[in-house]
Amino acid sequence: MDLNSFGRLFKISTFGESHGIAIGGVIDGVPSGIELDFEWIQQQLDRRKPGQSSIVTQRKEPDTVQFLSGIMDGFTTGASIGFIIPNDNQKSHDYDHIKGVYRPSHADYTYSKKYGVRDHRGGGRTSARETANWVVGGAVAKHFIPEIKITAYVSGVGEIKLDNDYSMYDFSKIEETAVRCPDLGIAEQMIEKIKQIRKEGDTIGGEVTCVIQNVPVGLGEPIFDKLHARLGQAMLSINAVKGFEYGEGFASTAMKGSEMNDQFNPDGTTKTNHSGGIQGGVSNGMDIYFKVAFKPVATLMQEQTTLNSEGEMVEMHGKGRHDPCVVPRAVPIVEALAAMTLADMVLIQRTRNI
Amino acid sequence: MDLNSFGRLFKISTFGESHGIAIGGVIDGVPSGIELDFEWIQQQLDRRKPGQSSIVTQRKEPDTVQFLSGIMDGFTTGASIGFIIPNDNQKSHDYDHIKGVYRPSHADYTYSKKYGVRDHRGGGRTSARETANWVVGGAVAKHFIPEIKITAYVSGVGEIKLDNDYSMYDFSKIEETAVRCPDLGIAEQMIEKIKQIRKEGDTIGGEVTCVIQNVPVGLGEPIFDKLHARLGQAMLSINAVKGFEYGEGFASTAMKGSEMNDQFNPDGTTKTNHSGGIQGGVSNGMDIYFKVAFKPVATLMQEQTTLNSEGEMVEMHGKGRHDPCVVPRAVPIVEALAAMTLADMVLIQRTRNI
Amino acid sequence: MDLNSFGRLFKISTFGESHGIAIGGVIDGVPSGIELDFEWIQQQLDRRKPGQSSIVTQRKEPDTVQFLSGIMDGFTTGASIGFIIPNDNQKSHDYDHIKGVYRPSHADYTYSKKYGVRDHRGGGRTSARETANWVVGGAVAKHFIPEIKITAYVSGVGEIKLDNDYSMYDFSKIEETAVRCPDLGIAEQMIEKIKQIRKEGDTIGGEVTCVIQNVPVGLGEPIFDKLHARLGQAMLSINAVKGFEYGEGFASTAMKGSEMNDQFNPDGTTKTNHSGGIQGGVSNGMDIYFKVAFKPVATLMQEQTTLNSEGEMVEMHGKGRHDPCVVPRAVPIVEALAAMTLADMVLIQRTRNI
Amino acid sequence: MDLNSFGRLFKISTFGESHGIAIGGVIDGVPSGIELDFEWIQQQLDRRKPGQSSIVTQRKEPDTVQFLSGIMDGFTTGASIGFIIPNDNQKSHDYDHIKGVYRPSHADYTYSKKYGVRDHRGGGRTSARETANWVVGGAVAKHFIPEIKITAYVSGVGEIKLDNDYSMYDFSKIEETAVRCPDLGIAEQMIEKIKQIRKEGDTIGGEVTCVIQNVPVGLGEPIFDKLHARLGQAMLSINAVKGFEYGEGFASTAMKGSEMNDQFNPDGTTKTNHSGGIQGGVSNGMDIYFKVAFKPVATLMQEQTTLNSEGEMVEMHGKGRHDPCVVPRAVPIVEALAAMTLADMVLIQRTRNI
Repeated sequence: MDLNSFGRLFKISTFGESHGIAIGGVIDGVPSGIELDFEWIQQQLDRRKPGQSSIVTQRKEPDTVQFLSGIMDGFTTGASIGFIIPNDNQKSHDYDHIKGVYRPSHADYTYSKKYGVRDHRGGGRTSARETANWVVGGAVAKHFIPEIKITAYVSGVGEIKLDNDYSMYDFSKIEETAVRCPDLGIAEQMIEKIKQIRKEGDTIGGEVTCVIQNVPVGLGEPIFDKLHARLGQAMLSINAVKGFEYGEGFASTAMKGSEMNDQFNPDGTTKTNHSGGIQGGVSNGMDIYFKVAFKPVATLMQEQTTLNSEGEMVEMHGKGRHDPCVVPRAVPIVEALAAMTLADMVLIQRTRNI
Repeated sequence: MDLNSFGRLFKISTFGESHGIAIGGVIDGVPSGIELDFEWIQQQLDRRKPGQSSIVTQRKEPDTVQFLSGIMDGFTTGASIGFIIPNDNQKSHDYDHIKGVYRPSHADYTYSKKYGVRDHRGGGRTSARETANWVVGGAVAKHFIPEIKITAYVSGVGEIKLDNDYSMYDFSKIEETAVRCPDLGIAEQMIEKIKQIRKEGDTIGGEVTCVIQNVPVGLGEPIFDKLHARLGQAMLSINAVKGFEYGEGFASTAMKGSEMNDQFNPDGTTKTNHSGGIQGGVSNGMDIYFKVAFKPVATLMQEQTTLNSEGEMVEMHGKGRHDPCVVPRAVPIVEALAAMTLADMVLIQRTRNI
Repeated sequence: MDLNSFGRLFKISTFGESHGIAIGGVIDGVPSGIELDFEWIQQQLDRRKPGQSSIVTQRKEPDTVQFLSGIMDGFTTGASIGFIIPNDNQKSHDYDHIKGVYRPSHADYTYSKKYGVRDHRGGGRTSARETANWVVGGAVAKHFIPEIKITAYVSGVGEIKLDNDYSMYDFSKIEETAVRCPDLGIAEQMIEKIKQIRKEGDTIGGEVTCVIQNVPVGLGEPIFDKLHARLGQAMLSINAVKGFEYGEGFASTAMKGSEMNDQFNPDGTTKTNHSGGIQGGVSNGMDIYFKVAFKPVATLMQEQTTLNSEGEMVEMHGKGRHDPCVVPRAVPIVEALAAMTLADMVLIQRTRNI
Repeated sequence: MDLNSFGRLFKISTFGESHGIAIGGVIDGVPSGIELDFEWIQQQLDRRKPGQSSIVTQRKEPDTVQFLSGIMDGFTTGASIGFIIPNDNQKSHDYDHIKGVYRPSHADYTYSKKYGVRDHRGGGRTSARETANWVVGGAVAKHFIPEIKITAYVSGVGEIKLDNDYSMYDFSKIEETAVRCPDLGIAEQMIEKIKQIRKEGDTIGGEVTCVIQNVPVGLGEPIFDKLHARLGQAMLSINAVKGFEYGEGFASTAMKGSEMNDQFNPDGTTKTNHSGGIQGGVSNGMDIYFKVAFKPVATLMQEQTTLNSEGEMVEMHGKGRHDPCVVPRAVPIVEALAAMTLADMVLIQRTRNI
């Protein structure tokens, strides 16, 4: 039933909590004969890892991936690819203060009720550390679809938003700032905002935009595997995500058909791209673009009154090292999930015609 | 691989185009011993069917479901439930004018490229007639979760939006107007808007809000089957949907953690419900609420220049009977998909503890 | 979870009991652009149907398949193919005498305990009528793999067995006798045996051999989807099957490696074929052959003492029209399941290499 | 699509070759709150490992399992359980002599053609080392179904077979001899046979019988997930298996219905058990028993002429340390697959009734 899996043909099944020996997974469905660039894969992990800049959590986790199978002489063999990312930072006692305490807007309460037990160490299976597994899966997937270009960036931190369409930005600037926003002026404001919020012991929400370019026509499946439905499910799986929209998104609810429709050019491209590169769930060759909404992190460095497992209201104060705003580190995660979704769809499309 | 299926344990697999003999499906995983209310099931279909009011398409499709298996003396037997909905309205020649023509912002072009062939009759497999199958599946699912209350309504047509939170509305009023909006004054404005748009030969977008009440704590699965991720995938599968958000949704991107966090009451409920009833992907017992964004229908009763399969630009004029705004008819579809998602999660939860 | 489904990419999901309106299913994954020979498909159903000869059940069931979707102008469109086979013979009262009675070696008792309810009419979901659905699925699958030749025949009825290897028989003779055995002399003995057994009010077991020729090298997947494991699961799904072996099968348990190993020819073929065309779960291009063991039908035209749902021992006498030996009608079923398995593997193989 | 997975709700997804860093997998669906006996789990691995006695391969592989997640304080948490078994014996150069050579009746040729590449080191993904992963999965599964007793034993080595029904043997004697046969006299003969065969540089086939006792009524699903069909698929997945039968198996093909039918006792048990504990694919509470046929190992310590990847016939001589007969080490593998199948069916059955 795959409750820890993503994808149908290109598939990742994962495991791991932040306070065990390692997290990891199995990547299934990777065709044989693909040369893997291990250095590039590790770079993707480095883009996600804690401690990479002054505006993210200062936890130290090297996040080094170790591949265990499915590869010979640097090429995939077609066998399933097992991998682990050892946990070097297993300070379980950091979490002693929350044992038996349900933190507000965390999954502590819901997991306790669901499983009758709760792994309180670092959030157990709810830890966003899981997303490191996805970055590995996405980086492997990317090798299978080298021609497709996937770019995510931060388009909002709190009320500071990018006003323009993605086509107005120079994507080569994204990695130039710690906040991963291609408008360097606005990036500066975002960084200031995050620093100020952290000083308050508070956190702030944000928004990531993702653009997928050079997509072949025909990816995506009818009915429940529409390309955007699968992208949506993927993005909504990321911790703290509260919304997903593609193309004109929520703005299209106020539009007329005569405004929204994309008129064709003779070559099958369209003059506008309100649709966001997908029609009827299937890619039309235009750029795919979508936005992902992230709520503020629930762990605050402030006093909060909350509930414990005895049904008592207790005082708690956030400890540990947490992100004041998750979106800068979410960028490679969004890209990774998009890459796995696309790779899956490319494999499915191989089976569609005689 | 189930490219025409939804759900894991409570599962529907569907087939059908609007211009064949019938559409239908197989519902799998329904436990035995459930008494079905066939009249109520048919009522759900009637809420979706064309021609039900003056503001929807005037096509006549009786949409009568016929159950073929899995039921004895009115109770489910545990066997798979097959059903069909005969197509009484198979005027294929209505669509002769679009044979070989790619309508703007339809799936004509993408399907042609994907499959190398295209069923132009009524959109083939892309027809929203498919959603009648889902309404059957959802209506059966609802019997399995009678205590859970699922209510959808229209919260926006074009720029006319409901301003208030769902708790301010009297849900018993929803079915009182053709537009399925619980604020009767605003409903009137929406109806006027739709009539005016139709007169222009144009179409308009809209928004549906859904509220799920009386949900047990513990539904939803970690990682990729988070309750909201599955709801999101479901909603994004509906024709014309461009966005999904739950709880505070996109608004949460501008919020601070100290504003967003829901503080506990001693009984495990929360004082606020910014989270939208789900924490860590698992229901917390509070109301679940989400919004679905619908773009305007692509078929216009206006002249448009478009592409044909010969690569020529041609003039076309929309024909047939189409909805000027889909949201009134989308209400039972949203409810049905939510019901199937919840029923699935209830079955999964049965397997989680010793 | 697909508890009424077979296959991964080429997939059939079925429903139906013998005493409802119709049985049927959804075939998913069929590539677009395949021309279907409907007459040939119906012929396959006719080979399975009751009443076709004097040695099978004399029930009259026309078994006419009706396709509902996924086909345009005789070609597949790539959309899911829905179909039904109406039940014209719904004499439920034929089964009144077994209501509440658990027939020996039937599924009456196990289903009652499993579901807490039992559809006694014609065996409900356990009815072998379900296999008509599979014949439709297999016949559609066969169109996708026209070059692969699948031939099944009866190689045993009771103690009367074919002594020789399949290569010694002229397959064109199989359909010449009612028992579907290619050795006409032995076929005669088998028919006599079946008639005698029927006269006794008894039933008899039998064996079907299947040969798959012209298989491309490389079909079958490592680990749990080995080609023979999938064929085995398929065959063990047929009512009354108690065993499956391929290649040398159980005889290989007494062989030495030096006897069993198949030595290569320079072209990659092998000098012998003890392996049965599969090595490491993957086809090697040689003929695949396997045997399926069928136990005698449990319904006897004799008095039997048995249990009822009240826990009382009661006398019962078989009624209705049942097969004295199922193997002649099992031949097209075995072929159909083999065809679906192979079609599935061909689709999977499309995804394996860059 | 899960081409490296087994099970639906209780599910294992595996990876690994014998010459990588480690093999391992992810076990999904294990309910929370189960206390694991790690010592017992390791014992199961020890029963499978090479070098455990004089009649099996003398390779040294400690096969120590390391659990990485899903467990807290010795109890399962409901999260996916990741595990690895490090490979301590990675002498790849042992296999240099077969690089580019297709060994007779191995998967070398088929894998090369399937994937366009072949991992020749220890057979790559076709290595029976994979079965160590299954033993871990089965050992975890067994904790979930403690009341069900699963016992496998060797019932045949070459032509030496156990004559009696399983009920005539004392299962406590199985582990007393290296060959795992409960009849100590026959065990002695089997051991002699294996030693003699090894001296010849040859190998020999064999047979394993498995008995499952104390099974609740109602396990197994209709149609393609019949309990015996799933057991059959599992067993046919084991390297070198050529056949599977349950209950009377192939012998039932020569039986009459009046001989085969199992008559009821008033308590629902049956006077005989020709059916093998399963009726209509569902357990009836009687003992389940089945046989698995193993062909002789293909690697011989003899000179063989074979094919290489250049299309030339070459001489090769088996090297390395291989089993002359696999059945003694297959016993815990058969048990493990049976345990996973049963655990899966128990979870599925939880979802079947209201």
